Amino acid sequence: MKSIFPSCHVSRHSLLPTLAALAALLSLIHFTDANAQADPLPSWNDGPAKQAIIELVKATTNRASPTFVAPEERIATFDQDGTTWVSHPMYTQVMYCLERVPAVVAKKPELKNVEPFKTVLSGNREAMAKLSMKDLEKILVATLTGMTVDEFTAEVAKWIATAKHPRWDRLYTELTYQPMLEVMQYLRANGYKTYIVTGGGQDFVRVYSERVYGIPPEQVVGTAGGTKYGYDKSGKPFLTKEPKLLLNDNNAGKPEGIHFMIGRRPIIAFGNSTGDRQMLEYTKAGDGARLALLVLHDDAQREYAYGPAQGLPDTKVGTFTQALYDEAKKTGWIIISMKNDWKKVFPSTSEPW
Amino acid sequence: MKSIFPSCHVSRHSLLPTLAALAALLSLIHFTDANAQADPLPSWNDGPAKQAIIELVKATTNRASPTFVAPEERIATFDQDGTTWVSHPMYTQVMYCLERVPAVVAKKPELKNVEPFKTVLSGNREAMAKLSMKDLEKILVATLTGMTVDEFTAEVAKWIATAKHPRWDRLYTELTYQPMLEVMQYLRANGYKTYIVTGGGQDFVRVYSERVYGIPPEQVVGTAGGTKYGYDKSGKPFLTKEPKLLLNDNNAGKPEGIHFMIGRRPIIAFGNSTGDRQMLEYTKAGDGARLALLVLHDDAQREYAYGPAQGLPDTKVGTFTQALYDEAKKTGWIIISMKNDWKKVFPSTSEPW
Repeated sequence: MKSIFPSCHVSRHSLLPTLAALAALLSLIHFTDANAQADPLPSWNDGPAKQAIIELVKATTNRASPTFVAPEERIATFDQDGTTWVSHPMYTQVMYCLERVPAVVAKKPELKNVEPFKTVLSGNREAMAKLSMKDLEKILVATLTGMTVDEFTAEVAKWIATAKHPRWDRLYTELTYQPMLEVMQYLRANGYKTYIVTGGGQDFVRVYSERVYGIPPEQVVGTAGGTKYGYDKSGKPFLTKEPKLLLNDNNAGKPEGIHFMIGRRPIIAFGNSTGDRQMLEYTKAGDGARLALLVLHDDAQREYAYGPAQGLPDTKVGTFTQALYDEAKKTGWIIISMKNDWKKVFPSTSEPW
Repeated sequence: MKSIFPSCHVSRHSLLPTLAALAALLSLIHFTDANAQADPLPSWNDGPAKQAIIELVKATTNRASPTFVAPEERIATFDQDGTTWVSHPMYTQVMYCLERVPAVVAKKPELKNVEPFKTVLSGNREAMAKLSMKDLEKILVATLTGMTVDEFTAEVAKWIATAKHPRWDRLYTELTYQPMLEVMQYLRANGYKTYIVTGGGQDFVRVYSERVYGIPPEQVVGTAGGTKYGYDKSGKPFLTKEPKLLLNDNNAGKPEGIHFMIGRRPIIAFGNSTGDRQMLEYTKAGDGARLALLVLHDDAQREYAYGPAQGLPDTKVGTFTQALYDEAKKTGWIIISMKNDWKKVFPSTSEPW
């Protein structure tokens, strides 16, 4: 019989074993796939952090477990800056605010020669680095309030679609941590509702949280100012962002914000700095199985190294003090060593290392 | 052959037609069930309100519809008092606060002879009805703040499990509106996320919202005070309810609260009083298909009659002004007439009418 493959002279008789071998090979591939799926956290090295996360999920989702948690009570909270994406050398939202200054000054020319706007407009990074907290607050108020909610959302969406991190020349939204994205997916696959609980701006993070983390806007808890309801000339209502702080979602503000916005205590919480301490304490103070974890940035090569815990360089951006490290060790929180626990840091496979 | 049923002398031969008849009967029952399921709002009379709700759902969930809405954007908001349960002669939460006064005074005996506590302790309903808003505020502060979040939740859970409405001698939680429960279920079955957006206390409603409405605590937006994070002697953290208003979820506070807590504009919103006006305006100001509805209490026999819209008796509890009625008519909001649109009011079948 002539082969149906013109240039391939194989008889049907000899083709069968080939197909059988192919089938065996395919089953092997499927087997490998199944194996890959069996590891829900492939970017994590085997170690105490990965083990603790998997054990917590088992302890809370197995109906036979004494610490089983009903699906509706499965709440997981993630700090954002330094926990789920890069926050050095400066918080992404602060970069947004600094880059918005020219547009704000264009609308209010009287600010042109007024500090701190004058310094920001100069582009002098050294001078900008010396701005005080009070100066920074003025910049945040000028760039985050005074416009409608819809205008702000549109501005952030436009900026975040193209703004890049100076070190990697990649979009900020590409500099999320692959291991944390895997944890979020793993928790959701096990019935957990995942929340961002950030010191950053709630309205800012909500613009991209669904696309970047798979977390919808209503599951973003963040620092938030009030809004003011009003009407335009045609009588159409709109909300204006006001310079009035409603929730300072940092430190004790995190458990307060969690109670306010969610009304349930987390089962598992992730942070990376002193601003997350109270959220982790509050999480661990609940009954049953609870887990608190802190990302330690000890990987200058692949990302950054800062503490000052464990002798790492000091920083004002996402400070991880030795006191926090000691509290973690004493109370059974898990330290995630970026260097040792993470096989890879960022989602793309095209990393230079 | 001897029957396996000792006292039932039926041969296998004669049993078969019986089984066939039974099967036919069962299929008939299934058919009836399927028919019942075909009407998602069985407690609603056919009319413009029922029709508008069903049309809105079709317009937003049919992929071929030009006003199709992605599932994650399907947000439905419900005012509570007077919209999803009885709020006359007085709001349920105010009844709770009044009934808590003796316990508060027992802990703080110095309040015993101080107004307005003295009047409340007297039990004189006429005198209590004359208390000013300032007096009422003092009672709310004394009974809703100053305790831990967990203590408050436990107290409300205990009270709401037994507290009854004086007119019907039924639990307050049984005096929800069956037609509105059906709307909630219908919307959820069509991918909508249902929220309570109440002028009442967020922490109060969260205690029973899941059980009574199928709405989890994180989907309750309400008037909320701040909490304060602290530690007990053993170092265990807890949150104390503070007399500091964070969100006054009434009037313009409703769209502000919706933006703060949800971050999305509702597709459909239900209210019953002037306190809901801005929520309905905000809902209707969105693009595409949107629906705003107001329950009009025009049914003194089965529930209550109050307005003063349409010449109904005036009230301070859930006021529905003629101006609100006129705005509704002018802008295409739907008025739900309790008397004409609802076949039944309450869930139980043991209603006295």
